[in-house]
Amino acid sequence: MNKPTINPGPVRGPADHEVRDQIVSAATEHFRLYGYEKTTVSDLAKAIGFSKAYIYKFFESKQAIGELICANCLRQIETDIRAAVDSADHAPEKLRRMFKAIVESSMQLFSEDRRLYDIAASAATGQWQAVRDYELRIQQLLQEVLRLGREADDFERKTPLDETANAIYLVMRPYLNPLLLQYSLGATDDAPAQLSSLVLRSLSR
Amino acid sequence: MNKPTINPGPVRGPADHEVRDQIVSAATEHFRLYGYEKTTVSDLAKAIGFSKAYIYKFFESKQAIGELICANCLRQIETDIRAAVDSADHAPEKLRRMFKAIVESSMQLFSEDRRLYDIAASAATGQWQAVRDYELRIQQLLQEVLRLGREADDFERKTPLDETANAIYLVMRPYLNPLLLQYSLGATDDAPAQLSSLVLRSLSR
Repeated sequence: MNKPTINPGPVRGPADHEVRDQIVSAATEHFRLYGYEKTTVSDLAKAIGFSKAYIYKFFESKQAIGELICANCLRQIETDIRAAVDSADHAPEKLRRMFKAIVESSMQLFSEDRRLYDIAASAATGQWQAVRDYELRIQQLLQEVLRLGREADDFERKTPLDETANAIYLVMRPYLNPLLLQYSLGATDDAPAQLSSLVLRSLSR
Repeated sequence: MNKPTINPGPVRGPADHEVRDQIVSAATEHFRLYGYEKTTVSDLAKAIGFSKAYIYKFFESKQAIGELICANCLRQIETDIRAAVDSADHAPEKLRRMFKAIVESSMQLFSEDRRLYDIAASAATGQWQAVRDYELRIQQLLQEVLRLGREADDFERKTPLDETANAIYLVMRPYLNPLLLQYSLGATDDAPAQLSSLVLRSLSR
């Protein structure tokens, strides 16, 4: 069978999203080795073999690259947390596993990828959009679990849902936020179990 | 009336505790102006008009002076927290006021005396004895309030007291620890009320 003739059009370089991916992947590697704070866009350009101007064509700043890497990391943590919530049938156990996954998955980022954690810390200090989005999605997930528990008569319904969700989020926050997590390390072994038990007692009917 | 004759003994300089107080008070002033981390014992000696060797006769290091200042600050916060607890008659309200006082009194140190807060931050990073003592005393105060609430039938008694106390302490910790507090600032307005309500729901019978 003859292949159909395709008009190849003008010769083109790689697509924009490919270049962006290439920059992000090289930058991730570079930040992992040398840290985010200490690396400049010039360092990155040299390491990738691009000109600085070329990188600026795709990202307006180092932070824009960092934001994308950070968003990827946070999406991984969020995926772990959602998987943990989905792995249980009932709301109380979902909440328990949510606490556990928050601490474990954030700790993993902290201990295994110390350099990438630096990006997350910069992100939390600078209130990057990726972090705000992440916090919002975790709050939504928490609300879903609470709503489910109320519908199944597992949780009390007297307290306004917003207030309950917000208070529980405040309890989770020191383990979600990388800046707080680094100071909560000593307390993390028993923390998820003890805090989720306390929260579940507060939710009992 | 004749004054009784007193044998004045050998001429003496100021008592040791007076010199120590003098050093601590001058150091507090100096740290307040220039910060704890940036000040050396030589700077202190120059500012007070003592020799470095003379200061070392009374304190083995800058940290030893810092520890004393830190202990004084923490004692002030503890006094505020105890006063708040004592101002209520019943355990639930005591707990509510304890949360409120923890945030307010720590925040006051943070905002009004930013330089002294730096000492507390160094203390928390280095796990100084003064901080460990302070944390222990707050835990004991919390246990007292819980015991009182259990005796008055205000709080549930099924959960072991130790576990309840520890979990509630974990909830308080981000507002007690100066390192954590600086990252919880945005959340502090509603935090004490919302967290103490959650904790009180968890304690209900």
